Amino acid sequence: MKQNSTAKAAMGSGFTDGFHRALQISPDKIAAICGERKRSFAELGNRVSRLASALKDLGVRRDSVVGAVALNSDNYLEYYLAVPWIGGIVNPINFRWTADEIAYCLNDSGCRVLFVDDMFAKLVPALRAACAGLETVIFWGDGATPEGCLSMEELIDNASPVDDVRVQEDDVYGLFYTGGTTGRSKGVMLTHRNITASGFSILAEGAFGLGAVALHAAPMFHLADLMGTICTLLRGGTHVMLPGFDPARLAALVAEHKVTDLLLVPAMIQACLANPAFVGADLSSVRGLLYGASPAPQTLLDAILRALPDVAVRQVYGMTETAATISMLRAVDHAPQTRVEGRIRSAGTSFMHTQLRILDAEGQEQPRGEVGEIVVRGPNVMKGYWNQPEVTEKALRNGWLWTGDMGFMDQGGYVHIVDRSKDMIISGGENIYSIEVENAVASHPSVASCAVIGIPSDEWGEAVHAVVVLRPEQSLELDGLIAHCRQVIAGYKVPRSLSVTAALPISGAGKVLKTELRKPYWDGRDRVVN
Amino acid sequence: MKQNSTAKAAMGSGFTDGFHRALQISPDKIAAICGERKRSFAELGNRVSRLASALKDLGVRRDSVVGAVALNSDNYLEYYLAVPWIGGIVNPINFRWTADEIAYCLNDSGCRVLFVDDMFAKLVPALRAACAGLETVIFWGDGATPEGCLSMEELIDNASPVDDVRVQEDDVYGLFYTGGTTGRSKGVMLTHRNITASGFSILAEGAFGLGAVALHAAPMFHLADLMGTICTLLRGGTHVMLPGFDPARLAALVAEHKVTDLLLVPAMIQACLANPAFVGADLSSVRGLLYGASPAPQTLLDAILRALPDVAVRQVYGMTETAATISMLRAVDHAPQTRVEGRIRSAGTSFMHTQLRILDAEGQEQPRGEVGEIVVRGPNVMKGYWNQPEVTEKALRNGWLWTGDMGFMDQGGYVHIVDRSKDMIISGGENIYSIEVENAVASHPSVASCAVIGIPSDEWGEAVHAVVVLRPEQSLELDGLIAHCRQVIAGYKVPRSLSVTAALPISGAGKVLKTELRKPYWDGRDRVVN
Repeated sequence: MKQNSTAKAAMGSGFTDGFHRALQISPDKIAAICGERKRSFAELGNRVSRLASALKDLGVRRDSVVGAVALNSDNYLEYYLAVPWIGGIVNPINFRWTADEIAYCLNDSGCRVLFVDDMFAKLVPALRAACAGLETVIFWGDGATPEGCLSMEELIDNASPVDDVRVQEDDVYGLFYTGGTTGRSKGVMLTHRNITASGFSILAEGAFGLGAVALHAAPMFHLADLMGTICTLLRGGTHVMLPGFDPARLAALVAEHKVTDLLLVPAMIQACLANPAFVGADLSSVRGLLYGASPAPQTLLDAILRALPDVAVRQVYGMTETAATISMLRAVDHAPQTRVEGRIRSAGTSFMHTQLRILDAEGQEQPRGEVGEIVVRGPNVMKGYWNQPEVTEKALRNGWLWTGDMGFMDQGGYVHIVDRSKDMIISGGENIYSIEVENAVASHPSVASCAVIGIPSDEWGEAVHAVVVLRPEQSLELDGLIAHCRQVIAGYKVPRSLSVTAALPISGAGKVLKTELRKPYWDGRDRVVN
Repeated sequence: MKQNSTAKAAMGSGFTDGFHRALQISPDKIAAICGERKRSFAELGNRVSRLASALKDLGVRRDSVVGAVALNSDNYLEYYLAVPWIGGIVNPINFRWTADEIAYCLNDSGCRVLFVDDMFAKLVPALRAACAGLETVIFWGDGATPEGCLSMEELIDNASPVDDVRVQEDDVYGLFYTGGTTGRSKGVMLTHRNITASGFSILAEGAFGLGAVALHAAPMFHLADLMGTICTLLRGGTHVMLPGFDPARLAALVAEHKVTDLLLVPAMIQACLANPAFVGADLSSVRGLLYGASPAPQTLLDAILRALPDVAVRQVYGMTETAATISMLRAVDHAPQTRVEGRIRSAGTSFMHTQLRILDAEGQEQPRGEVGEIVVRGPNVMKGYWNQPEVTEKALRNGWLWTGDMGFMDQGGYVHIVDRSKDMIISGGENIYSIEVENAVASHPSVASCAVIGIPSDEWGEAVHAVVVLRPEQSLELDGLIAHCRQVIAGYKVPRSLSVTAALPISGAGKVLKTELRKPYWDGRDRVVN
């Protein structure tokens, strides 16, 4: 049997493929809308190829890491396309992090070039001081280019276009930092194939259909929103950017640009439904709503289904390590007419590209209804953790990703998640790893020991709550704790409430029994934990 | 950067993955309906794992070739699943071939085990005599097992189930012998990934949606129908088998089983529309109709759109070497309200997983509107031709498949195919694309259907010859045809001679067999094909 290596080498599914297809089919169609700015695919293609050229002149090579800290904009899309255009690796960064957290990420990834916008230009001096490897900072904001930064517009103006190198599909597209049980953020390596496999499967579910106009309302740095990006790129649709989340502005953009597809976290849905400008707006163009990344109470789902009765509402369960996709709760599972009792709070059934199992600690498949660890396999499963081979080998065993999430599968293959073994709180769509908050709380001089849990919040799904044992003769007020934590961790991770106790409940194995701590808060309520 | 080889090794998209997913989610759902026989996924899974086990006992190993010559049935689906279950390679064979042609194929593929049904059991002695390597013939028909054959039912009954070996996605799934319109039939090696990539992309276009019930009306040996198979498997839908094509039976199955998706060749559509039982049937369950494999006249498309106004009609352009997919003419391109002049006869725009270009002989991209060779790249492009490395290297250059089809791309990226380069007639140094002549001939009021070929000419090298099927009660003289064609096409393209026939020879794939038409003219002479 003759292997044809050149054929194999050039085939595949790259992040920029859909963009090239749109350039071929609809060069004059509007590709991106950002405020007053509308750019066609041809214009965007010209800008991307010039920006790629400029990055090359700045020393970006195959596998060079290029970061970004910025609000949503069409520039973000150009960044996502220009970096792989020359074989580089994107490193989109959570803009809610503190300068210290961002610096840790940039140093860990070996980031050499960083993009910032107006909002985050002020971080540059601190990042430069903390990141010796950071060579170049490029500014894509609307204001004047800050001292020591290059202007993205000037770079584009002065560069000559280059061709897309068309990387291999198993090359790394990006590093996506995620927290972990150790408290240190890890860079998840996702390949082009990982991301396009998730994209094709979401498209195969009917989202982002022909003529898609997608609104980027969730932060573009977030992998969930990147799914909207890849789906819209593959479909050749139009991207509409919402720089900062605001329900009234969201509704106005939907009505003005006839947005067809929304991707939101439940906290955003909640905020939208509470806003008269959203409820009264013309949302008739919307065909699909994807939500994920945090629990959605049934009352919220019922409210959104009442507000948007003709919209296909779909939940995605996934994680960074699986390029955001594992399973889907489909529109038929949501619709009141076809809904099956008890499944509305499940994470649905596996995507068509994933294989999903519930295993016990020995790797044996659990009977239906029995809780075990959720493991997953498929072309979407990450290549590994950046520079962390040991952690990678723990997570990826015999080709299966051990997610750390605990759940059971019902007779219909629906996955019900009962707990996250990583001890993670999801608040407003952000993953918060308890240990990281506990480290911050424990560093307060009055604290002897502590545990951090998620408690119910109508606004955020879950809110961060600290349970503290004080040192002798000490006292602690919430304000003081918050002020202390804000110096070390991002604002969204800081505890919103505090209780003081004489001793934490400890298991026989010496672990804090968080289920005991959670009980009084969740009693009589469903903690939805997907 | 740590490569995690175990993760890579186990991921991917195999042919049987969708089946396993259905086994997990809906074991009791009906998977296949064949006549009075209905089998659930669980039943089918049990049978497939036993059949795989029996094949293993018969010596089938990784990369062993296992053929089939049979009409459509649920057994065919079991064959398609059981062979890869133990790492074998399927070799589905065109049942319209002569025993000699089938024997050539079996010898070329090195087929060791062959499945046959009632209809083709009679071929077995001739095949045994001609194929020394053929060890075992397995009979899956309803009648008595013929002498020298094993019974599939007995094999299943006596075997113990085995687990699916879950091959790698880049392993060969099957050998698909090309129609043989030119020269010797070649075995196209398609990998698991080739086939699933096409499948996901067809699903992403909206075909075979949730709750799909697919009718196998086209022959299951054909790759076009295999696309229906993989899409339905991925979706976890129900397969309904139509053993021999018959419009009335087709309509009855649609009505009885609420078929949602049809995949037909234009000749079948024509036959359906001419049949009162089809036109009068309840076809309201049908959501999508895919057609391909040969061009469809606009009058035929208009008729089907009138007959099935709520059905999404989609054309697929592809070939065996691309796992049946290259481009699609979508439902919006067909619908009278949204149709764009001139595009209904095009092959549409590239699928989302393919890259498509029109190149000149030197490999330079042609300007829009200029004819060149259609080349394509993507995860669907074949691994190569079985045991034919030189031919493979001619077809696959720098990762692109050179299709041999000539066409141009319009400003909107739509591909217009003007001819298969093999069918191009060269007369007096002029390139003549036969489809253009055929369109002219077909527009004559006396002509029902036609084919145009090049025949030997001492003066011109080749001369244009028309073979015509007349409408009832009509006649046609050469002078009249010439006068008609001269009104539509240049003089050098007009047929120089004419023959009238009762029916055109059609391949199993629904294509006119021009080699058959040419044979009497070229016998004993060399036809120089550019």
